[in-house]
Amino acid sequence: MKTILAEILSIGDELLIGQVVNTNAAWMAQALNHVGITVVQVTTVQDDKKAIRDAVAAAMSRADVVLTTGGLGPTKDDITKTVLCEYFRTRLVEDLRVRAHVHALYKDRPQILNTLTATQWMVPEHATILPNRVGSAPIMVFVRPKAKSQEPRAKVLISMPGVPHEMQIAMNEQVLPYLREHLQLSADIIHRTVVVYGIPESTLALRIEKWEKNLPKSMHLAYLPKQGVVRLRLSSYGEATEQQIDAQLRELLPLIDDHVIATEDVTPNEVLGCYLTEHKQTIATAESCTGGRLAALLNEQSGSSAYYMGSVIAYDNSVKQQVLGVQVETLATDGAVSEACVRQMAEGVRRLLHTDYAIATSGIAGPTGGTPDKPVGTVWIAWATPKGTKAECCHFGGDRAQITAGAAMAAIGKLLLLLKSE
Amino acid sequence: MKTILAEILSIGDELLIGQVVNTNAAWMAQALNHVGITVVQVTTVQDDKKAIRDAVAAAMSRADVVLTTGGLGPTKDDITKTVLCEYFRTRLVEDLRVRAHVHALYKDRPQILNTLTATQWMVPEHATILPNRVGSAPIMVFVRPKAKSQEPRAKVLISMPGVPHEMQIAMNEQVLPYLREHLQLSADIIHRTVVVYGIPESTLALRIEKWEKNLPKSMHLAYLPKQGVVRLRLSSYGEATEQQIDAQLRELLPLIDDHVIATEDVTPNEVLGCYLTEHKQTIATAESCTGGRLAALLNEQSGSSAYYMGSVIAYDNSVKQQVLGVQVETLATDGAVSEACVRQMAEGVRRLLHTDYAIATSGIAGPTGGTPDKPVGTVWIAWATPKGTKAECCHFGGDRAQITAGAAMAAIGKLLLLLKSE
Repeated sequence: MKTILAEILSIGDELLIGQVVNTNAAWMAQALNHVGITVVQVTTVQDDKKAIRDAVAAAMSRADVVLTTGGLGPTKDDITKTVLCEYFRTRLVEDLRVRAHVHALYKDRPQILNTLTATQWMVPEHATILPNRVGSAPIMVFVRPKAKSQEPRAKVLISMPGVPHEMQIAMNEQVLPYLREHLQLSADIIHRTVVVYGIPESTLALRIEKWEKNLPKSMHLAYLPKQGVVRLRLSSYGEATEQQIDAQLRELLPLIDDHVIATEDVTPNEVLGCYLTEHKQTIATAESCTGGRLAALLNEQSGSSAYYMGSVIAYDNSVKQQVLGVQVETLATDGAVSEACVRQMAEGVRRLLHTDYAIATSGIAGPTGGTPDKPVGTVWIAWATPKGTKAECCHFGGDRAQITAGAAMAAIGKLLLLLKSE
Repeated sequence: MKTILAEILSIGDELLIGQVVNTNAAWMAQALNHVGITVVQVTTVQDDKKAIRDAVAAAMSRADVVLTTGGLGPTKDDITKTVLCEYFRTRLVEDLRVRAHVHALYKDRPQILNTLTATQWMVPEHATILPNRVGSAPIMVFVRPKAKSQEPRAKVLISMPGVPHEMQIAMNEQVLPYLREHLQLSADIIHRTVVVYGIPESTLALRIEKWEKNLPKSMHLAYLPKQGVVRLRLSSYGEATEQQIDAQLRELLPLIDDHVIATEDVTPNEVLGCYLTEHKQTIATAESCTGGRLAALLNEQSGSSAYYMGSVIAYDNSVKQQVLGVQVETLATDGAVSEACVRQMAEGVRRLLHTDYAIATSGIAGPTGGTPDKPVGTVWIAWATPKGTKAECCHFGGDRAQITAGAAMAAIGKLLLLLKSE
C-alpha cells in the first residue's frame, strides 16, 4: 500500500500565546490514522499572512493532504481564506448557498447575524465548498494539479474552522468521506481493538512478543496506552481479510486474558455502563482523595443516570464518619488511608444509596501529606459488590492531577477485571 | 524594544498519531510570552532524522530562539541528540557530571539504571549542558555564531526532555534564566493581571474600549478568556514603571468592578480557597448534572481539605430525596431541574455536612434529556450561605463535557461575585 502523508496546519494567535491547547491536532491525527493516513507534521502559525503562506507552501511540498484549521472567522484577524486564495491563485466570489445557510443558521439570533459580514459567504472561485452544518465558515477544498509526472495524484488542501466542535463534525461528515473518495483510500480498512488494563505497556509487549513477531506483514499492531489502559489495535489497510485478522486475535487473546476488559474499541466507562445496564444493576461511589474525579469520570458517559445513583465525597473525616458510617476507632488507629477505612466507605455508600456496587477511594494526592509509610500517590481502593468487598492498595505517579486521574481510572478498570473473574 | 522570536519544536511519534495532546507547547508558549518572547511557530515532527533536521533548519532561519522537546530517551527511537550533533557539526563525548547525576538519580532503582545505556551521559562536545534535576536526559544548549553581520545576536537552540514535568522544571530552573541572561531580556518585565467573571470578552472589550485606546504605547493589554473567566493582563517589557502601570489599573478597575474576582494572576479556585481559609469557613457541594466536576474542580487546589468538607452527588432523584432532603412534591411538580430543587439541595448538604457555604447544581448536560422549556445546557445553580440562599438559572453551550465544565466554573465564579457583593 502506498502510504498517504498528511500535514496539519493549525492557524491562530491564541495557540501561540499558549491560551489554547491544540487539542484539534491530536483529534485529527487520530481520525486520519484511523483511515490509514500518516500525519508527518503538525505546524502551528499565527494569523499572519507571510507565516500562513510559507507554512502552506512547505506543507504542500511535504504532504499529499494538508488540513488547515482556524482563521476563518469574520473579524479582521482572520485571514486564512484570503491567503489561500492568493496561494491557489483564485478570487473570492459570492456563494448563495452559503449565504442562505448562514441566514438560516442564525435566523433566531439576529444579533449574531449582524456581526457576520458578507465575508462569510464569499468563497474562492476555484475551490470545492463543503457544507459546515453547525457554523458559518464554509469548508474549502483546494486541489493542486499534479506538478510532476511522478506524483501519483493531485495534492489537496482542505481548510476547516478551528472551533473543535465544528471541526469534528466537518471531519466526520465531510472531510473524511471526501478524502476516502479523492485518495481512493481502501474501503477495506479493518481495525480490531483489544482493551487491556492493569499491565504496563512494556510487560505487555514482552508477553506477546512471539505472537507479534509472527504477525503477517499485511497487519499492523499499535499500542495506545493512556492512564493504565492500553488499547492494542490490529489494523489492515486493504491487505488482509476479516477472517485473517480474527484468526490472529484468537491467538492473542489467551495470552492476555487476565487483563482484557474489552474486545472492541470502547472506554472502560462504556464497558461498565453496558454491563450495569444489561444486568439492571446500579453503582455508587464514595471518594476521599479522588475528590469527585471518579464520579466525574463515570458521568462522562452519556446515559450514566440509568445506573449511576450518586456519590458521597467524604473529604473530611467527619463526613466519612457521620454520612458513611466509618468507625471512629478505624480513623483513630488505621487512619483514613487504610484498608479498613475504604472498606467501610464502600459498604457505607452502598447501604446509603441502595446500590448493587460501590467503589471507595482514600489516598494521598499530594503534593503534601505524604509519609515514609504512605508516600504521595498511595491510594486504597475498595469495591463492594453483592458477593462481598475487596480492597487493594495502589500507587500512582505524577502530580496531584495525574494521581487522582490514575486512581479514578484504576477504580473502574480493576472493577471490570473483578467482574470478569467472578 | 526589539522583539525576540521563538519557535517550539516538539518531537515524537506519539504526538503525530494523536495519542498525546501537545500540552507542552502551550505551557512553554505561556512561559515565553511571560518574559516577553514571542512564539511565531510550533512545529511537531516524528522521531525521524530528515524530519527533525529539516524542522531544525527551518526554525533556525525563522527564530532567534528554538526550543525543542522530546526524543531524548535511551531507546533507539529517540534520535534528537544525534541529529542535533550532525546539524551543529559536533560529536558526542562522555560527560562525567551527567554520568554521576544519573547514577545518583536512580541509586535506589537499579532496574531503571540498567535500562539506561551510556547514551544518557554522552553529550555534544560543543554544547553547554544544563542540569536536568529530575530526569536522566541532559538539557543541551547549542549556540550558532552570528551568520550575518546584521543579526543582532547569536541564535540559540535548547533541547529539553518531553516529559511535561521534566520540561517544566527545566524551563523554570534552567532555560528561562539562561535566556534572560543570553538574550539580555529586560529585567523590568511587569505584569498585572485582573481576573473577571461573568462578562463575555466582547462585552468587556466594549466596556473598556475608551480606556484601552488611551493606554500608553509602553503597555500591552492581553485578553485571556477561558470558561467564562477572562484574565486581563497589562504588561510592560522594560518601558513603563510599576507606578505608571498601577495608575492605569486604578482607572480600569472602577469600570469593571462588578465583575472583578481578583487583582492578581490566580484562579477562581485559589481566590475561594484563600477567602475560606482566611475566614475559617467551610464549603460543601451537592451535584446533579455536574456529576462530580464541581467537587473535582474545587479539589484541584492543593490544601482544599482545610475548607472543603465533601459533596453529595445526587444523580438519582432518590438520593436527592433521601440524603439531601429534597421534597417529593418539589420533584413531582417542579422537577429536578428547578429553582426549588437546587435550593433544597444546597440547603440540605449545608445542613448534612455542617458547613458555612454550600453550592448545588441541577441541569441537563445532554446530549439527550432536553425539552423546549429546558434545553440541553440549562443548569440551575444555588448558593446557600450564612445569609440565605440564592439561585440562578444559567445556560451553557457545547457538548456534555463543556456544559458540565462551564457549570462547575460558574458555580465558583458566581459565588465569588456573591461574596464580594455581600
